[in-house]
Amino acid sequence: MAKEITPRAENYAQWYLDIVKKADLADNSAVRGCMVIKPRGYAIWEKIQGQLDKMFKETGHVNAYFPLFIPKSFLSKEAEHVEGFAKECAVVTHHRLMKDPNGKGVIVDPDALLEEELIVRPTSETIIWNTYKDWIQSYRDLPLLINQWANVVRWELRTRPFLRTTEFLWQEGHTAHATSKEAIEEAELIHEIYTRFVEDFLAIPIIKGKKTASERFAGAVDTYTIEALMQDKKALQAGTSHFLGQNFAKAFDVTYLNEKNQSEFVWATSWGVSTRLIGALIMTHSDDEGLVLPPKMAPLQVIIVPIPKPTPAINEVSDKIIAGLKAKGITVNYDLDEKNRPGFKFAQNEMRGIPVRIGIGQRDLDQNQVEIARRDTKEKVMVPVDGVIDYVVHLLDQMQQDLFQKAKKFRSDNSHYVDTYDEFKQMIEEPGGFFYCHWDGTAETEARIKEETKATIRCIPLDQPIENGKCMVTGAPSTGRVIIAKAY
Amino acid sequence: MAKEITPRAENYAQWYLDIVKKADLADNSAVRGCMVIKPRGYAIWEKIQGQLDKMFKETGHVNAYFPLFIPKSFLSKEAEHVEGFAKECAVVTHHRLMKDPNGKGVIVDPDALLEEELIVRPTSETIIWNTYKDWIQSYRDLPLLINQWANVVRWELRTRPFLRTTEFLWQEGHTAHATSKEAIEEAELIHEIYTRFVEDFLAIPIIKGKKTASERFAGAVDTYTIEALMQDKKALQAGTSHFLGQNFAKAFDVTYLNEKNQSEFVWATSWGVSTRLIGALIMTHSDDEGLVLPPKMAPLQVIIVPIPKPTPAINEVSDKIIAGLKAKGITVNYDLDEKNRPGFKFAQNEMRGIPVRIGIGQRDLDQNQVEIARRDTKEKVMVPVDGVIDYVVHLLDQMQQDLFQKAKKFRSDNSHYVDTYDEFKQMIEEPGGFFYCHWDGTAETEARIKEETKATIRCIPLDQPIENGKCMVTGAPSTGRVIIAKAY
Repeated sequence: MAKEITPRAENYAQWYLDIVKKADLADNSAVRGCMVIKPRGYAIWEKIQGQLDKMFKETGHVNAYFPLFIPKSFLSKEAEHVEGFAKECAVVTHHRLMKDPNGKGVIVDPDALLEEELIVRPTSETIIWNTYKDWIQSYRDLPLLINQWANVVRWELRTRPFLRTTEFLWQEGHTAHATSKEAIEEAELIHEIYTRFVEDFLAIPIIKGKKTASERFAGAVDTYTIEALMQDKKALQAGTSHFLGQNFAKAFDVTYLNEKNQSEFVWATSWGVSTRLIGALIMTHSDDEGLVLPPKMAPLQVIIVPIPKPTPAINEVSDKIIAGLKAKGITVNYDLDEKNRPGFKFAQNEMRGIPVRIGIGQRDLDQNQVEIARRDTKEKVMVPVDGVIDYVVHLLDQMQQDLFQKAKKFRSDNSHYVDTYDEFKQMIEEPGGFFYCHWDGTAETEARIKEETKATIRCIPLDQPIENGKCMVTGAPSTGRVIIAKAY
Repeated sequence: MAKEITPRAENYAQWYLDIVKKADLADNSAVRGCMVIKPRGYAIWEKIQGQLDKMFKETGHVNAYFPLFIPKSFLSKEAEHVEGFAKECAVVTHHRLMKDPNGKGVIVDPDALLEEELIVRPTSETIIWNTYKDWIQSYRDLPLLINQWANVVRWELRTRPFLRTTEFLWQEGHTAHATSKEAIEEAELIHEIYTRFVEDFLAIPIIKGKKTASERFAGAVDTYTIEALMQDKKALQAGTSHFLGQNFAKAFDVTYLNEKNQSEFVWATSWGVSTRLIGALIMTHSDDEGLVLPPKMAPLQVIIVPIPKPTPAINEVSDKIIAGLKAKGITVNYDLDEKNRPGFKFAQNEMRGIPVRIGIGQRDLDQNQVEIARRDTKEKVMVPVDGVIDYVVHLLDQMQQDLFQKAKKFRSDNSHYVDTYDEFKQMIEEPGGFFYCHWDGTAETEARIKEETKATIRCIPLDQPIENGKCMVTGAPSTGRVIIAKAY
């Protein structure tokens, strides 16, 4: 079964598609660029939603729901926003079908033309700020700390499951504040929540930084980003949090009366992560045998396989282990399928990324032990039956940490400090990775790097020491390094 | 504040809109027929989702996600389905906007016309059965027990928040089975889950029944429904579960090999409940002072109000009560707002439907007691401080039961057994309610009743004794009564 997966070294892009398919995470659909998220993939999204939703609520945010459709004219109200989002999008022009008078089937009813076209939301700043106008009158109405879980549509030319699809699922937070300071603090708080979530739960180490002006969200004053390095040494933007200044408040005329009864424009943030995180998860940890999931994100954490088949004695031990693991909050299944042999099951469980496998056979039971295998390193150990629960609890925790450390070491091994453009141009191709370079801060140099190497400035890292240097391209002075990489 | 609500007796429809607005549940949006679900309304939807999702999973269902868009041609594959759903819907014809060459703003790019129009899903049978074709080969792949939480769009002419909106949120289950018997059992299982959920959690008594042929879901062989009676004596369909036979399997050519290696068409069900349940919740329990929520569905169950303001002594008692209630899993807030007086807060809490209010004032504390008020009956009692936790736990449980019993009594008081069409025509106008009548089983009679009285056959109740009678309209023989009512 594992043989059906193309090795990473042979074709990384195909390896990714193979994992998505063989681990049963997603499927293509009849609609170009839209995927079907299969139950095993959706269960990971539910884990992501559950944990993030908890973290948002613990910090005072509430959920709401805004319309799927945005009137066309709204998109052009914020000058930069229209440039960024009014291009490739799904446009609703009619509201009725009718029987085809010349044949079978249905056609669009020409009489049902909408007065104003509706855009399927690519992001919701415009419709939300048009609503906030009615909700905000006084400083007493602020802050508004609202999030929504929703689907959005961006008409992408080249799509790839989870990483870039025409329709995707995400959360988008949209907050309103009385002061600039408060809005910046909110954008930073979310940046920190995303960091904690991605590192502690997805076990993906990230760099916290700010985007350059040309890489910012369309309509943002500042974009905070978390950037991760995938196994093919390309960067992946895992989440962004935007300080929007008063741009949307001005575009939609949202003002409030402050404590001195003066009218002021409201300050805004927006922030989001999407089903793309599942792509990041796959690409960070998986191997040539299939999916590898950090235990905290695995919908099923432990599988028990009877060797070669269930017997009363094996069932009895299994029942005890299941009860013990469930009492610890660990998800576990007993594989009762008698059609397939243990070897097939082992490969299938590896493919699907189940973190821990417990094999129970009579020969081992005679010695009062079972075999426990971990998915990431494929190590197997014999564990006394009485010690299984404690062993598994500890093992899951250890795997969570090991996967993070392994990914961190990989990133560190593939991060380079480079000072000349020649060296950069060579190394960005081979070996690739994160490049810490001096840059003169101009959009021109940034555009030149992008054009000549296809690499982009991923971020200006926040935890960067001041270091005087010279731009590797122009030689102009610089006070710190930015991170450059090819990216998804 | 309560004065802002139109009394039910004066104008029921306006009363409903007032509750939605004043209890802060939903708002109109800039898009015709689409509502914004505000945080207080969405929190109720989260309670609905949380409980139903649990019940679905306990019975072996898993979640997945299918595309928002459906190719136009799919809708016409199932003959009856196209009649029911291909009419009023949102049609995507283009995938790009461009700058208006003659002015400001953006226009639809005429070059970005789609080859085939996409319909925003009004329901997902077609796209899902087109997908199932690839997922189902053998009896080993069955049953498929899949649910999705999603938004859907039906272009409605007359809309009302929660009850009927162009876009709404729902869950739609779509299951595939090897036999007719199994699919019918699934449709019945979900019918039972909906019943338990709506009665035990929403505290809305319902009638379980089947729809007549003309009221069935477009494409269904049988539609199971749960019907509730609102305070204006109109019926509301609260959920439906459909046995689809092999209709969609045939339309999309979905077959499987049975254990004898013979090819057979797959059997199907689909089932859904929507944000409409929030409308049912509002209309069943609320009164002229505002929203009334059964405690199990209240996002916030208890509010503590200091009288008239917080003091160290009041805070101390409040802290203890909060800790005690939280330990019992009860949600509670302490109202620290010092801008408004207790009387205003009491009215606001009533408006918002918080089930229990605890008022703590120094004069009562001197006697070691606090005041506890319940929202539904507005009864107030003094309770010793030490007994508050037990009292509230019991009170919430009692309110849940009382609300259900009250609604059940209302329904019983407004259910009529009527045997002549003249009496029916008079009584359906005044007093209105559920009418148990004999019907001859023909679509003609059903259509005539609908045309002449605007009332419809809500369902053929399942728990109905066999009773020989005569159709109230035609006098033809009948073996049992159906329920007729005006409906939402």
